[in-house]
Amino acid sequence: MDPTPRLIEALDADRDGAVARLTEWLRIPSVSAQPQHAADCVRAAEWLRDQLSGLGFTAGLRQTPGHPVVVAHHPGTNPALPRLLYYGHYDVQPAEPFELWTTPAFEPTLFEGPNGPRIRARGAVDDKGQVMTWLEAMRAWHSIAGGPPCPVTVVVEGEEEVGSPNLDAFLRDAAAELAADVAVISDTNMWNADTPALSTRLRGLCYVQLDIRAASRDLHSGMYGGSALNPINLITRILGELHDDQGRIRIPGFYDGVPELSAEQRAAWQALGFSEQDFLGEIGLSVPVGEKDRGALERLWARPTADINGIWGGYAGVGSKTVIAAEAHAKVSFRLVPGQDPQKVVDGFRAFVTARLPADAKAELQVFGLGHGIEVPADSRFIRAAQAALAEEYGRPAALIGCGGSIPVVSSLKTLLGLDSVLMGFGLEDDQVHSPDEKFDLRCLHQGARSHARLLAKLAAG
Amino acid sequence: MDPTPRLIEALDADRDGAVARLTEWLRIPSVSAQPQHAADCVRAAEWLRDQLSGLGFTAGLRQTPGHPVVVAHHPGTNPALPRLLYYGHYDVQPAEPFELWTTPAFEPTLFEGPNGPRIRARGAVDDKGQVMTWLEAMRAWHSIAGGPPCPVTVVVEGEEEVGSPNLDAFLRDAAAELAADVAVISDTNMWNADTPALSTRLRGLCYVQLDIRAASRDLHSGMYGGSALNPINLITRILGELHDDQGRIRIPGFYDGVPELSAEQRAAWQALGFSEQDFLGEIGLSVPVGEKDRGALERLWARPTADINGIWGGYAGVGSKTVIAAEAHAKVSFRLVPGQDPQKVVDGFRAFVTARLPADAKAELQVFGLGHGIEVPADSRFIRAAQAALAEEYGRPAALIGCGGSIPVVSSLKTLLGLDSVLMGFGLEDDQVHSPDEKFDLRCLHQGARSHARLLAKLAAG
Repeated sequence: MDPTPRLIEALDADRDGAVARLTEWLRIPSVSAQPQHAADCVRAAEWLRDQLSGLGFTAGLRQTPGHPVVVAHHPGTNPALPRLLYYGHYDVQPAEPFELWTTPAFEPTLFEGPNGPRIRARGAVDDKGQVMTWLEAMRAWHSIAGGPPCPVTVVVEGEEEVGSPNLDAFLRDAAAELAADVAVISDTNMWNADTPALSTRLRGLCYVQLDIRAASRDLHSGMYGGSALNPINLITRILGELHDDQGRIRIPGFYDGVPELSAEQRAAWQALGFSEQDFLGEIGLSVPVGEKDRGALERLWARPTADINGIWGGYAGVGSKTVIAAEAHAKVSFRLVPGQDPQKVVDGFRAFVTARLPADAKAELQVFGLGHGIEVPADSRFIRAAQAALAEEYGRPAALIGCGGSIPVVSSLKTLLGLDSVLMGFGLEDDQVHSPDEKFDLRCLHQGARSHARLLAKLAAG
Repeated sequence: MDPTPRLIEALDADRDGAVARLTEWLRIPSVSAQPQHAADCVRAAEWLRDQLSGLGFTAGLRQTPGHPVVVAHHPGTNPALPRLLYYGHYDVQPAEPFELWTTPAFEPTLFEGPNGPRIRARGAVDDKGQVMTWLEAMRAWHSIAGGPPCPVTVVVEGEEEVGSPNLDAFLRDAAAELAADVAVISDTNMWNADTPALSTRLRGLCYVQLDIRAASRDLHSGMYGGSALNPINLITRILGELHDDQGRIRIPGFYDGVPELSAEQRAAWQALGFSEQDFLGEIGLSVPVGEKDRGALERLWARPTADINGIWGGYAGVGSKTVIAAEAHAKVSFRLVPGQDPQKVVDGFRAFVTARLPADAKAELQVFGLGHGIEVPADSRFIRAAQAALAEEYGRPAALIGCGGSIPVVSSLKTLLGLDSVLMGFGLEDDQVHSPDEKFDLRCLHQGARSHARLLAKLAAG
């Protein structure tokens, strides 16, 4: 008998419970980038471990040189079914600038949006709320059948927002324990609130910090201006040349291996009817940047980028200070597409900087993350099961889309464990991911949970 | 009878007293740029007022919309002598970054240097220590003759380090009260510890803050990278173009009115034997920047510059944050030479930015100060008296030099009160003005006081 109606009933009956659980988790400020939140990261991991234990999983924390990984196993009620590995992350982005939040970032707040109630908090959608979609599906299966039909392994890390520096080593060491047939991840977006989506392309990410040093101390700009090298002048000169007039990135070898879109892919994306005007209009912009000769979705999903994510040096206080600083710094990241080698991009950037560096300046590069762009096969039984589950839940087919963001773990799962990933995400474009006032629509939380419950039913039905 | 020997004797006998007084003044953190130090600025002004009252001056504080001006008058013992106006400033630069100070910036500390004892503190030389040189000379004259021979007016402001926004209005309003024949200022350097100098050229200063805004909020660099305008990318692109490959500044009209050096001037400066290698070597640099086709002292004293004094935007914390910031900011200043119009430079910079601004970006310019470059006549009776006083004190002639820094008041004194300035300064190149570990050699303090006492004697002798 198809268990789906009873799963849906269980999820519908416990909507408030699901929101309460998510709220509890969101209250824990598990900001992986900030050392002062290290203990909060452990608390967030322990919270999830306890939830999984309560659902019949064998769950524990695995130490890493950084924040721990939550690992849990359930044998499933039918060990003959495919083994699933659910991946997510319990860490969140820094919430700064705090003053731009309508309500405090770590005091989750319900409020009404055009599509019903929403929850506002750092991590609401990225990724705690999305992890909750499959966790609530596990709860429904637990309540009606004593557990999921398939054997399930859970891996939820605490360093995704800082480039997962310790995940690969962990996956490599635990490869035997983590053996599975496919990975399932909810950390991407729907096409829109009514249209589900499966992401089959992800951009990779190189994230570096450039530190430029010149004189041995800060200098008076009157006494030294016109003679002494100014590292802030220099860093603007170097980084100001990252793009040419056509929006192309000028790092040598940067486009090596970047494939051209197939005609089919181009047509499929064109059929989505994406309006870049609306996309930009929502954030107060009107003119796209990037390569002038490329389409909108192509630029977002299938072309690499270079963005300066932070810059600082010299005096940034009130009023004026006539200083020539001794140092200047910038955080620079590159979104990569399948075919690009992240290490070659870093090497190219280093060469780009070095070629523009006068004798007196010293440049250092710190690398915070290297992730390949990735493409997942769209025709597997798992993608087909996910398409069926989503179509059943939403009453319309799922769009097969790209994603401009990076989930480097997808590449690691493929390389280290041999797993393809089903990227079934429930975020929306206006969720303000990484921004102040991040939110998650409760409708997405609920339909996400129902979709995951259905997916397990589809896989159980074979 | 020449009073000079008795003046010297009095100053020599009270060396420790002079250091104790300077120490007391340096303990007051009169940072004009930082609102939290407003009360300290008043305290520093009151301290000076009380010192002047103790030396027979009629002294008081004059309110301005910002920090008060200390004004004091002494009729002099011979009203027929030329009237002198002594200018200085009691405010200091911010001391950040505090952690780079060997001892706390506002706990003055004596230590031994190659030329004897020094005092380390923010403001040690700029300008409290230099003000003390003429204040101690007044004390010596007070002790041996009941006051200075010439009628003396003192004007010591508290906003020099923030561009003197209220000084011009004050000078204009008080013009009658401040009538004098010449201004005397100690806020410049000696040629070296053994060679005194009179500065006859000063660069002016334009100081602006550029604020660039794009999207209505911070964005996720994965979701928006390749489509949304990044204001940090943009600000580096704009400011990276400030200089061309030859070191010339590319702002339209920037060099309008910049005069060429006379052959005599060029020869006189060449005779000083300035070593730019040593000048830069001391701060860990070796290759000069600036216009490639100009001499070293010419670039420092007679050519305008553009320096970014601060830049900030996006994430500057630990690790990585994949954000496209909504704003980027920079503080930019221009050192100007006589002939340049500061307002035209600001207008030119505005046009330079606007010409590089895409439709979606908004740029705002805040102006923190506008000061002309200036040249003072080298052949007046006052300069001759100062040359005689310095030659007597140091046993060698004073160098007539330029100064890369800006003392906008020199221009204001000329324009508003009709006064030329005698710029007799006792700073040294290694004083770390505006940097951590600012210091003043006690030898400079003492010989400066003796030189000022001698100058008054020369003027009294006619």
